[in-house]
Amino acid sequence: MVVKSQLKLVKSLHQKKYRNQHELFFVEGFKLVNELLRSGFTLEFLCATKENIELFSTVSSVYEITEGDLRKISALKNPNGILAVFKMAKKQILTENSWVLALDAVQDPGNLGTIIRLCDWFGIQNLVCSLDTVDCYNPKVLQATMGSIARVAITYVDLSVFLSKTKLPVFGAFMKGQSVYTQDFTSAGILVMGNEANGISKELEKLITQKITIPQFGKQTAESLNVAMATGILLNEIRRG
Amino acid sequence: MVVKSQLKLVKSLHQKKYRNQHELFFVEGFKLVNELLRSGFTLEFLCATKENIELFSTVSSVYEITEGDLRKISALKNPNGILAVFKMAKKQILTENSWVLALDAVQDPGNLGTIIRLCDWFGIQNLVCSLDTVDCYNPKVLQATMGSIARVAITYVDLSVFLSKTKLPVFGAFMKGQSVYTQDFTSAGILVMGNEANGISKELEKLITQKITIPQFGKQTAESLNVAMATGILLNEIRRG
Repeated sequence: MVVKSQLKLVKSLHQKKYRNQHELFFVEGFKLVNELLRSGFTLEFLCATKENIELFSTVSSVYEITEGDLRKISALKNPNGILAVFKMAKKQILTENSWVLALDAVQDPGNLGTIIRLCDWFGIQNLVCSLDTVDCYNPKVLQATMGSIARVAITYVDLSVFLSKTKLPVFGAFMKGQSVYTQDFTSAGILVMGNEANGISKELEKLITQKITIPQFGKQTAESLNVAMATGILLNEIRRG
Repeated sequence: MVVKSQLKLVKSLHQKKYRNQHELFFVEGFKLVNELLRSGFTLEFLCATKENIELFSTVSSVYEITEGDLRKISALKNPNGILAVFKMAKKQILTENSWVLALDAVQDPGNLGTIIRLCDWFGIQNLVCSLDTVDCYNPKVLQATMGSIARVAITYVDLSVFLSKTKLPVFGAFMKGQSVYTQDFTSAGILVMGNEANGISKELEKLITQKITIPQFGKQTAESLNVAMATGILLNEIRRG
């Protein structure tokens, strides 16, 4: 049976401050927990309700939890019987011969989750986030990744330092730039996507070597594309060559 | 001041049955209400709280509403002071010389809202939905369209009848089909997108003339793209030519 100190720990992991302090995070649901287990994340412990506990008979550090206790520590409206605490992945070294996606102050957890999933689909192994981008271990981000968090290396850095040091060409998504339909993409590069409301910051704009844009075909009054949607379309453009 | 019968009417419009019976729907927020007013939808009446009412001084049929009454009839967690009831648009005749997007049983209101917004961006004027696709006048769909509902003609039809009558080529999104990177798109056609969990139904599959797919570059374990994301990437492919 799970003990009080474990419940208290999971509760604290709802906050970024404590996730970083303990270097731990939690995910919920059979599918997501299972993907992280298989992909080499180190399990701290796993809680499952009575009817779910035998699903993890081969895993050590499994504790039974009551529905009531799970409700108290879950990040979901309707907890689904399984919650696991994992150690954060060690920071990966970036390779300089492939495509890297960089995010400048993306705020919405659902957008970051969708973008991580897109990296997984389009085989982008390195995602670099500005320090003010939403935390990838935020429970809402993790739920939106659908397990892709296990296959994409995510680093938080000072983006202006990172971009000023790179030798790769730096592409940035702007409302006014060269049409992606006529843009030749190199075999490696960095694609920078900006904040939901303000786009790429003035400071980073100076470090962009090529401004690109997705052409619009409807009336000029159309709302601009959401950052996750624009990322999907641009990664597809990069991969199609 | 708004009267009881109006409050009762708006409450009933949360349900599809009453929306269709009255041929009315409602939207909330200055931006969305304003877009519909400008785009030729016929206003039935508009409710605004005291501090918002002067924003609509040039509009007739404006009634003051208390914060409390608005909370009772709003579809939002945090109502934003303005709610308006409009007449449904008359069904539009489909043109046969342009691109049409067809949806087979798309269920999620956020997905439909995003797809309507994509049609607006990519200049797709006709969206045809199967009868079991979520209602486009659902309040959650309308909020997600960001006003694009004003610029896209949406029709609900028996898709199998519609597709069997058309002379246009019918493209369908499948997990296994021809890569969109090698597909030549015609100047006009129909793109069919399927249900979130099950894709395009067996019945409609027979009516598809060309199965297409978005190539995957990551590991095979990557979760398939969400239907709205796949629609965005495919409409971009169609428009880029």
